[in-house]
Amino acid sequence: MKSTFRFEVLAQSPISHARRGRLYTPHGVIETPVFMPVGTQASVKTLSQDELEQLGFQIILGNTYHLYLRPGDERIARLGGLHRFMRWERAILTDSGGFQVFSLAALRQIDDDGVTFRSHIDGSEHRFTPERAVQIQRNLGSDIMMAFDECPPYPASREAVERATERTYRWAVRCQRAWSEQPGQQALFGIIQGGVYEDLRLTSLQQITSLNLPGYAIGGVSVGEPTEAIRQVVAFTAPRMPTDKPRYLMGVGTPEDILHAVQQGVDMFDCVLPTRLARHHAVFTSAGRINLRNAQYQERDEPIDPTCDCWVCQRYSLAYLHHLFRVGELLAFRLATYHNLAFYARLMARIRAQIESGAL
Amino acid sequence: MKSTFRFEVLAQSPISHARRGRLYTPHGVIETPVFMPVGTQASVKTLSQDELEQLGFQIILGNTYHLYLRPGDERIARLGGLHRFMRWERAILTDSGGFQVFSLAALRQIDDDGVTFRSHIDGSEHRFTPERAVQIQRNLGSDIMMAFDECPPYPASREAVERATERTYRWAVRCQRAWSEQPGQQALFGIIQGGVYEDLRLTSLQQITSLNLPGYAIGGVSVGEPTEAIRQVVAFTAPRMPTDKPRYLMGVGTPEDILHAVQQGVDMFDCVLPTRLARHHAVFTSAGRINLRNAQYQERDEPIDPTCDCWVCQRYSLAYLHHLFRVGELLAFRLATYHNLAFYARLMARIRAQIESGAL
Repeated sequence: MKSTFRFEVLAQSPISHARRGRLYTPHGVIETPVFMPVGTQASVKTLSQDELEQLGFQIILGNTYHLYLRPGDERIARLGGLHRFMRWERAILTDSGGFQVFSLAALRQIDDDGVTFRSHIDGSEHRFTPERAVQIQRNLGSDIMMAFDECPPYPASREAVERATERTYRWAVRCQRAWSEQPGQQALFGIIQGGVYEDLRLTSLQQITSLNLPGYAIGGVSVGEPTEAIRQVVAFTAPRMPTDKPRYLMGVGTPEDILHAVQQGVDMFDCVLPTRLARHHAVFTSAGRINLRNAQYQERDEPIDPTCDCWVCQRYSLAYLHHLFRVGELLAFRLATYHNLAFYARLMARIRAQIESGAL
Repeated sequence: MKSTFRFEVLAQSPISHARRGRLYTPHGVIETPVFMPVGTQASVKTLSQDELEQLGFQIILGNTYHLYLRPGDERIARLGGLHRFMRWERAILTDSGGFQVFSLAALRQIDDDGVTFRSHIDGSEHRFTPERAVQIQRNLGSDIMMAFDECPPYPASREAVERATERTYRWAVRCQRAWSEQPGQQALFGIIQGGVYEDLRLTSLQQITSLNLPGYAIGGVSVGEPTEAIRQVVAFTAPRMPTDKPRYLMGVGTPEDILHAVQQGVDMFDCVLPTRLARHHAVFTSAGRINLRNAQYQERDEPIDPTCDCWVCQRYSLAYLHHLFRVGELLAFRLATYHNLAFYARLMARIRAQIESGAL
């Protein structure tokens, strides 16, 4: 199962851009389209690593910004890398830290060389450059690292997006250089920016893919814009991306968003939605999203979803889950998270099967 | 495994009062001496019921006061009882609510008939009487219910303890009457009070055991008094309790306290210590208690306790647990709780084996 990085398309849908693929990484093979649970601080919140294995996840995401601040990438390197640190032998993708620097950190100052920012935790000053972002991800030892990009918020002026897109390209060139100087097992993905402007997306796509990296991502979406805007960007960008490389849509999304993007040819997804919603007592069911704190569930002895085969639905009732949330028992967060990730795992398995059967 | 309530002493230590016993309940057989994890609000904090099963616990404790307030004993009864509500098919002991009324509730007014108090959650007014406490525990459907007692704080004047002890007896008589009026599968245990006064303990013991109930508890300990005072009360009271009935020491304690009490002939224990300490980053090891937030663990790649066979110690390192606590990840609480309860489960198994081999 261990291998150097490689991607192959196994099947192409005859009726959409959807494709069924396989990613080979140093930590196992990943069937695509794939959803990657978010393990920001070296933990997919509330779940143990054996539960993620039980759910069948082959790859999870770690956040470079958070891990750099705590416990520190150098400490993780001394402890044998992120896989060893968190005892997760399957694949890991790390983001570049760019998105968090631009959304979480305080007092950031951006220049052509990089970004100086203050930690959202203790206000201490730090600096990320493309080279530093690669170095940190090298210390973390992820299977897939992401190029350091500038991700403008939404809405942003065309000029601001244009500047960020240009800078993202120059930074990607520097990331590639830093990455290729010390060849290793880690793959580097480039990030396409361009906001909601199709001509900028096209320019960014041409620039970034000219670097001939192992994979490419659509970044700068899911930053506050309406669903329709995300979908237009995806529909415009994804089909134009190289067919022989994995396509990763960052930070998306709802089951409907994922289904849409798969049909545009996207292979990889990550999103905090299923785990974050769970901590806000919202769970996915085959009949739609429900809120477990709703009083209508207080005497319902049936599971969240009678069609769900996850162990939470096999064992616990809506009434019990409602009670746990109402009284603030920590078990509630775990049970809802597990169920939501089971829902997402099943969604992706169904999508893969539908592509194989030509139905998507 | 299902049976009506029965207790048998399997072996008596030749060198101490320690005894090895077996409790038969409608929800399974329990090997004694036994430790019962505390599931205050129908959840042993952070753990799932399958984890408690995995740890081998045959009985857990539920708190009548909390369950009466939320979700309500009548709701639990409509949902099939506490076992069904929380999907726990093994045995449950419920306390009487007395201890919480006297320690948690606000503005309590006590009279000979019962106690009026305000909820610590919303300030609403409620009243417990001996009959009501039995009725609530009947609704919960626990295997063992406790008689409603008055539990004075420590320190308390001899007069206050004497009054509370007398009242506890009168209330126990009423609990027994209410309990025997509707015979069922649930056992009722009486509680011996008397504070740190040996003559009051003796009087209470004679009064309560004269009721010929299925089991007896030593109450009014672990309410703030020094360890030595607890041990003196246990050493005085336990050996004088009927030998053919289970002896339960309420709210105790540390591994050392349990070991001491077993040698005085106690069979059953409950305590929030292992679960509460875990949430405050303290874990038990074969070399003593350690604090996982201590900086000395930040780069230690070995388990909490190399001699521990629990899955937390099999998988995770001190460095990772330290990190999870430091950044506030919810997984930390679960992993520490699981480990501490594994420690207690192993402690009790070792104690039982030592009694069998005549070494305790």
